[in-house]
Amino acid sequence: MSQKIINTDDLAFLLYELLDIERFTQFPRYADHSRDTFDAAIELALKVGAETFAPHNALCDANEPRFEDGKVIIRPEVAAALAVLRDTGLMAASQDYERGGMQLPSVVAQTCIGIIKGANVSTQAYAGLTIAACNLIMAHGSEEYKQRFAEPMMAGRFFGTMCLTEPHAGSSLADIKSRAIPAEDGSYRITGNKIFISAGDHELSENIVHLMLAKLPDAPPGVKGISLFIVPKFLVNEDGSLGERNDVQLAGLIHKMGYRGTTSTMLNFGEKGGAVGYLVGEPHQGLAQMFHMMNEARIGVGLGSVMLGYTGYLHALEYARDRRQGRSLKERDPASPMIPLIEHADVRRMLLAQKAFVEGGLALCLFTSTLIDEKKHADDPLVREEAAGLNDLLTPIVKSWPSQFCLEANSLAIQVHGGYGYTREYPVEQFYRDNRLNPIHEGTHGIQGQDLLGRKVAMQDGRFYQALLGRIRATLDSCGSATELAAQAKLLSDALATLEEVTDALQALRKSDPERALANAYLYMECFGHVVVGWLWLRQAETALKGLQQGGERPKAFYQGKLAACEYFLRYELPKPLALAAVLRDADRTTLDMPAECF
Amino acid sequence: MSQKIINTDDLAFLLYELLDIERFTQFPRYADHSRDTFDAAIELALKVGAETFAPHNALCDANEPRFEDGKVIIRPEVAAALAVLRDTGLMAASQDYERGGMQLPSVVAQTCIGIIKGANVSTQAYAGLTIAACNLIMAHGSEEYKQRFAEPMMAGRFFGTMCLTEPHAGSSLADIKSRAIPAEDGSYRITGNKIFISAGDHELSENIVHLMLAKLPDAPPGVKGISLFIVPKFLVNEDGSLGERNDVQLAGLIHKMGYRGTTSTMLNFGEKGGAVGYLVGEPHQGLAQMFHMMNEARIGVGLGSVMLGYTGYLHALEYARDRRQGRSLKERDPASPMIPLIEHADVRRMLLAQKAFVEGGLALCLFTSTLIDEKKHADDPLVREEAAGLNDLLTPIVKSWPSQFCLEANSLAIQVHGGYGYTREYPVEQFYRDNRLNPIHEGTHGIQGQDLLGRKVAMQDGRFYQALLGRIRATLDSCGSATELAAQAKLLSDALATLEEVTDALQALRKSDPERALANAYLYMECFGHVVVGWLWLRQAETALKGLQQGGERPKAFYQGKLAACEYFLRYELPKPLALAAVLRDADRTTLDMPAECF
Repeated sequence: MSQKIINTDDLAFLLYELLDIERFTQFPRYADHSRDTFDAAIELALKVGAETFAPHNALCDANEPRFEDGKVIIRPEVAAALAVLRDTGLMAASQDYERGGMQLPSVVAQTCIGIIKGANVSTQAYAGLTIAACNLIMAHGSEEYKQRFAEPMMAGRFFGTMCLTEPHAGSSLADIKSRAIPAEDGSYRITGNKIFISAGDHELSENIVHLMLAKLPDAPPGVKGISLFIVPKFLVNEDGSLGERNDVQLAGLIHKMGYRGTTSTMLNFGEKGGAVGYLVGEPHQGLAQMFHMMNEARIGVGLGSVMLGYTGYLHALEYARDRRQGRSLKERDPASPMIPLIEHADVRRMLLAQKAFVEGGLALCLFTSTLIDEKKHADDPLVREEAAGLNDLLTPIVKSWPSQFCLEANSLAIQVHGGYGYTREYPVEQFYRDNRLNPIHEGTHGIQGQDLLGRKVAMQDGRFYQALLGRIRATLDSCGSATELAAQAKLLSDALATLEEVTDALQALRKSDPERALANAYLYMECFGHVVVGWLWLRQAETALKGLQQGGERPKAFYQGKLAACEYFLRYELPKPLALAAVLRDADRTTLDMPAECF
Repeated sequence: MSQKIINTDDLAFLLYELLDIERFTQFPRYADHSRDTFDAAIELALKVGAETFAPHNALCDANEPRFEDGKVIIRPEVAAALAVLRDTGLMAASQDYERGGMQLPSVVAQTCIGIIKGANVSTQAYAGLTIAACNLIMAHGSEEYKQRFAEPMMAGRFFGTMCLTEPHAGSSLADIKSRAIPAEDGSYRITGNKIFISAGDHELSENIVHLMLAKLPDAPPGVKGISLFIVPKFLVNEDGSLGERNDVQLAGLIHKMGYRGTTSTMLNFGEKGGAVGYLVGEPHQGLAQMFHMMNEARIGVGLGSVMLGYTGYLHALEYARDRRQGRSLKERDPASPMIPLIEHADVRRMLLAQKAFVEGGLALCLFTSTLIDEKKHADDPLVREEAAGLNDLLTPIVKSWPSQFCLEANSLAIQVHGGYGYTREYPVEQFYRDNRLNPIHEGTHGIQGQDLLGRKVAMQDGRFYQALLGRIRATLDSCGSATELAAQAKLLSDALATLEEVTDALQALRKSDPERALANAYLYMECFGHVVVGWLWLRQAETALKGLQQGGERPKAFYQGKLAACEYFLRYELPKPLALAAVLRDADRTTLDMPAECF
């Protein structure tokens, strides 16, 4: 393949064979669409990704944004690529036709933006944050704000940011200190300091629209007192033209291990008296609004992680096919030619692990994206409700699983390259550095684990957890009868039984001793994630088997590869987190009881 | 503590309570030494590490060596620090008195150099490579070469390199193309290209002594045809003065993800007709000679990895004590003050994991170092033989285990820091980047796995493998009777039984189908490593319990921390690699059978 962003056979397999997204064309909203229009959007993204985004990825890593003469200077390739992306219309891929959007299903829009992430995650971030901020205004803002701020964002004229974290408050958003005071004209005057604001200042767009969390004077304490504001870099007049510079100051740039092309900033709001801000929706609803959006933002993080893992895998695969080193154990003649790396079992193990992680992760992200389409646009309200619930349940998984295991895939891609992989002359080390951000932002692993075990599993008396189990059991039932997959189904079925047992024990304990029940929540999430991905692998195997037996669209070797990767995942990876079943079931107190002074 | 390189309580515990290195003062070679002289050397290393090496660690990461006007330009702090180290005499810590050395036990010398690694692994590398190259000449070189090359290296006047890898041959050293032709004066003329040569060119020392692998004209094919040569940058006259520039050219610098302070080079030998080289030892013995040294070099890699993990852990620990974020699950008042990170169970999990990895890894490295002292200087030839065998057996473990799990510790140190950990304003991201080299150089994980399962375990009909099992069983026996540790002993004993079963199955299969038996060698090594480190943790727990009960030298909280970390390791970490027992026992063919075209 000429691009090393994604295996297009795999993508088509997941979208059309596994997830059957053509069914969405039956939803009234997507009635004008067809597989052809989906594919056209995806091919466009691939072309832009490979030709416009990928070529400057290493360049921007080596030349990160810098502050000069009061401005953030970014390599010109970034603005040029974003202009190309803007012109494709993909920044409004899922928006309504009447707003200038393409009205594509969320799963197709995510696929397109995922491809851009795989090509160049840092340049993509400017667009990705804009789409996220725009969606937030579209979900909760007034019609006036939609027109004044969101529509120029869809058109790629304004870019967006998310201003949540403050120097003293990251995971603990309840403790933010930014304040908003009502002004006479109905707007607000905002003061406060924000940190780690990606794309917080630059000259790439006409304007920057900050979506900012702050507290009103009458705010109740804690998370219930947070409100959401639009704070533009330049004020926007009623006719849409730009007005004065708002009171938002760049306080400094942050230098990161990776993701270096995306400028990360400290911003001071209201140093000169107060930045003009506009309340989004009702007062004190900021965190709920933000979390409403978080489901999509967290799929975005997971998908970014998958795509970094995926491109690393394709680079490692090419290298392993080309590079010759050593001989097979059977070959005794030292003068015989060396064999390609891929002929060594241990290299194949590393490639299979990468394949299992990135293709499994992609299946997870795309499946979760289909839930967003279903929850928004399915006819049947019960289907919508279940999709919404499953989406909520899976959000911590889709955020954390890829950011752990596709990072591991990036490490394996380096390992396949040997010493070369450790050098900046090859791209895999950058993917690894870039990907290391993903376990941190949009909620750390620890936060996700608490969310899953402390909230999501128990939602509505476990209704959506049970719905997920039901879906997994249905797959087990259908595979159990196909003898080719019976052994794999058994592996997953045993793991599922363990997960259920552990879940029951912890949910029971949660009522009497939540602190202890949640002490190992991160490890619980690892088990849960592996069972979910194991399920999606078994579904992939089932689909591949059908493709093999019925002569599917893709080559035989492709389907065989899917079967092998499923086997690998269930045998080599699934057992590891499940090995801690006893720790979880017994609500092991080791971490809880360790006194701070004993470290 | 003022330095964050190592916990000196832990170091003293390991050296004196666990490993009882004072016993070495009874060896004639170390008769002049005492705990005081050991401690003096260690304190000196700590002072030099903290005051001279650590302060420029981030600086050299941000300002890597560059090529200008025909020279490699390195920050001046590097030469200054190495001069201080040279003046301490620590570069000859384990050498004979009559050569100007301190004649310290290997375990003390390794401890000292380990501390310098923890302070600044990149600057240390210039010294570390010099010590390794010097040891190689001391082991196999003629008296003439010892005086002409090795003694100036001990004195820190000449630095050394190891020139093994060529652009087309890394793991597969059998395939090197460098050639050596005998000259009339008894020396050789060397031609060839080498890559990834750390410290390959610089202006830090009077001269650079390259230890280089090349082939003689009559060399048999493969590894049996490799010879070892000394190739100095400047020729050295008989009186020790420097002569002409030798025919060794810098062909380029390599830019790495981490370890940036250590210049990595491509070197061309003999572009102008042939570099002058001197054969070390007998012809065609180069690989054996190199491997003779590899045991110490690989402990060096493992120790470097441990020390990077260790300093990361201490930074994370300090941050977790200082930084406040969120509240306990019991606290319902959002206006209550935030609690230190270390109060959160998930943060304690990450700190316990780091503690278990780095203190367990340090125990592993120091234990293995004591084997070197025993194998060289113990009175009893049987003790020497067993120590040599155990040292051989454990070499792949001591190289690979820390470079996997102490790298994981570095990742956890970042995670404890949250967003701050991902920035270059904090040191933990550098430790992570630096440490990522360790799974690659001096033999990748894949190579180590083959070495362990394909060679070391079976050496002398499994004699040293059995000796190791015997030592583990002895610890299990003594802990089994102490009820406080009976549960932990049971966990290790079960793991040991699994390892034995797996080993027996694979050793049996190795005779009939070595390719299949070795296909999962890497995973076997993970199990083996965890059992060995689990054993050393149980020994630490046993020693700590004694310290608690008999009022040992260290604070009570310290001993309690050791008991908790042992519990953590055996319960939370040991089960994971062992969960693949079935894959190993059944010699699972998944990786072996995957056809290359199915990826």
